[in-house]
Amino acid sequence: MAPMPLPERDLIAQLRRRVSPGGRNRLTGRAKASIRVGMGDDCAVLRIGSDLDCLVTTDFSLEGIHFRRNWHPPESVGHRCLARGLSDIAAMGGEPVAAFLSLALPGALPQSWVRAFFRGLLRMAEQHHVRLAGGDTAESPNGVLADIVVLGTVPRGQAILRSGARPGDRIFVSGTLGGSAAALAQLRRQPRKKADERQFARHFYPEPRVQLGRMLRERKLATAMIDTSDGLSTDLAHICEESGVGAEIDASSIPNARVGQPRSVDLDLALHGGEDYELLFTVSTRARVPRTLAGVALTEIGRITSSRKIRLHRMDDKTVPLKPRGWEHFRKK
Amino acid sequence: MAPMPLPERDLIAQLRRRVSPGGRNRLTGRAKASIRVGMGDDCAVLRIGSDLDCLVTTDFSLEGIHFRRNWHPPESVGHRCLARGLSDIAAMGGEPVAAFLSLALPGALPQSWVRAFFRGLLRMAEQHHVRLAGGDTAESPNGVLADIVVLGTVPRGQAILRSGARPGDRIFVSGTLGGSAAALAQLRRQPRKKADERQFARHFYPEPRVQLGRMLRERKLATAMIDTSDGLSTDLAHICEESGVGAEIDASSIPNARVGQPRSVDLDLALHGGEDYELLFTVSTRARVPRTLAGVALTEIGRITSSRKIRLHRMDDKTVPLKPRGWEHFRKK
Repeated sequence: MAPMPLPERDLIAQLRRRVSPGGRNRLTGRAKASIRVGMGDDCAVLRIGSDLDCLVTTDFSLEGIHFRRNWHPPESVGHRCLARGLSDIAAMGGEPVAAFLSLALPGALPQSWVRAFFRGLLRMAEQHHVRLAGGDTAESPNGVLADIVVLGTVPRGQAILRSGARPGDRIFVSGTLGGSAAALAQLRRQPRKKADERQFARHFYPEPRVQLGRMLRERKLATAMIDTSDGLSTDLAHICEESGVGAEIDASSIPNARVGQPRSVDLDLALHGGEDYELLFTVSTRARVPRTLAGVALTEIGRITSSRKIRLHRMDDKTVPLKPRGWEHFRKK
Repeated sequence: MAPMPLPERDLIAQLRRRVSPGGRNRLTGRAKASIRVGMGDDCAVLRIGSDLDCLVTTDFSLEGIHFRRNWHPPESVGHRCLARGLSDIAAMGGEPVAAFLSLALPGALPQSWVRAFFRGLLRMAEQHHVRLAGGDTAESPNGVLADIVVLGTVPRGQAILRSGARPGDRIFVSGTLGGSAAALAQLRRQPRKKADERQFARHFYPEPRVQLGRMLRERKLATAMIDTSDGLSTDLAHICEESGVGAEIDASSIPNARVGQPRSVDLDLALHGGEDYELLFTVSTRARVPRTLAGVALTEIGRITSSRKIRLHRMDDKTVPLKPRGWEHFRKK
């Protein structure tokens, strides 16, 4: 962990006071984990309750790959950066504790951009009681490069894995799908026009389903879980691969996002569009699943099969293979 | 934590088998920490003994900033990438447990480069009984971008911080200084000529002082400690800042590296050159420090003062302020 040789040294000093006061020993609420030493040493030091497992996830946010500076306001870039990590913690049924940000900035970047980036990131951190406990900074040779690490906890042995799905299990998804991809589709159609951040809130300010993930774990509802960061078709394939099972999805039951006026997004976006950060999970046959949990709608969209194939039951009553064609950021432009 | 959508998918699959067999539950030797779930889920799951604190550090290795592809062979880039993180763990007196690698690669990068990079990184990991337990991958818009996270452990409350130095404490450094910077100086003088990797081993294949750091902690020798990643003058300033003290260094006692034939590097390189990854630590007046520990020479180079200033006692018997002019990678070219 390096010191902070940024043009933003003042901001970082401010940050340090704000996010990790005194550098040590602030207990994070429910998590029974504390940060003993935050920024300002070679490593952060954390103490984790003996009845907890420790979760670690790391996610890039690279300019030109995960965001574009002319499309995404800096608050959104900071928000999405941390949201990606929090969503991974949510997908294990965990509780986020601390975040570590590696950030490389081009020399010519306006300080106002950096300030707004941190505003977006820290607002999201505060909302989830997560502390920024360290990281690294560097000058970037090209574009803004961020890597977020989130450390979380879960009661010992209770992390919800991708590998727990069994034939017969019902498949559920939270919220709606395709809303984030719809924003990108719009931005691609009119690359010079700013997208309406309110209309496309799910793209610019996605809400990681941390509370929902925790409740699904506490109620022992989910047998397997993943977040829809790469798109339903790809993320379902991950569950099937890790669990050694197949799945059949019912197209008519997919909860397509509505964007703008009550206009439903195309099924293709809902099936393959990524970055919605909803939870996709499986539930054993007999379990009773409420219609909403933690304020989020839960929709049954299919079943786990033993065939190892993933199939889509279309609206025209034909059943076809569902290939993972998940969103790969801006690569397929 | 994303899946691995790399051209290198096969390699990653291989890696996964190699570094995290079955994905779970391999106890790491002395560390009393185990990786329950490695790659292949939303997060890695680690279980940490209840008598341990958890250490986290994160470090960028960016092409053009921390290395150049025409100067550094891929094995060296992989080795140095992990060495940076291990050295931070060493500087706390800790035991490394798991590494997480975020890696973004340009589309046109030869697979042989990636293989050799991993060879260098995994050899270093094996040597220190560290497992690669997860990470993220992406396509890079420009150059190779790596961010390494290392998670380690230390007995509760025993991490050696930067803030423990007290006036009167003696200042020690391990090994020799300036050897890594000497390689860069040579590369800059003759940018088109390959540097001799054996002659400049400290630059291409630095050895993080993990065992030494642990022994200094076990013997309760170090009151404060940091690794010399940014250069003696800068890293000493960090100790002084965090401890609220000053220091006086004796130029004649600095253990300058010898490079090639018995040729000592310039004092300037030894004072300000970074990336030697030695340990810089303070010791209370009465403690007895052996000449070597864990096979590494220890040299007394000065004393902590109460003045808040850092001064250099030069060979001509003058005492002058020592400004932190630490190595900032390739920026000052």
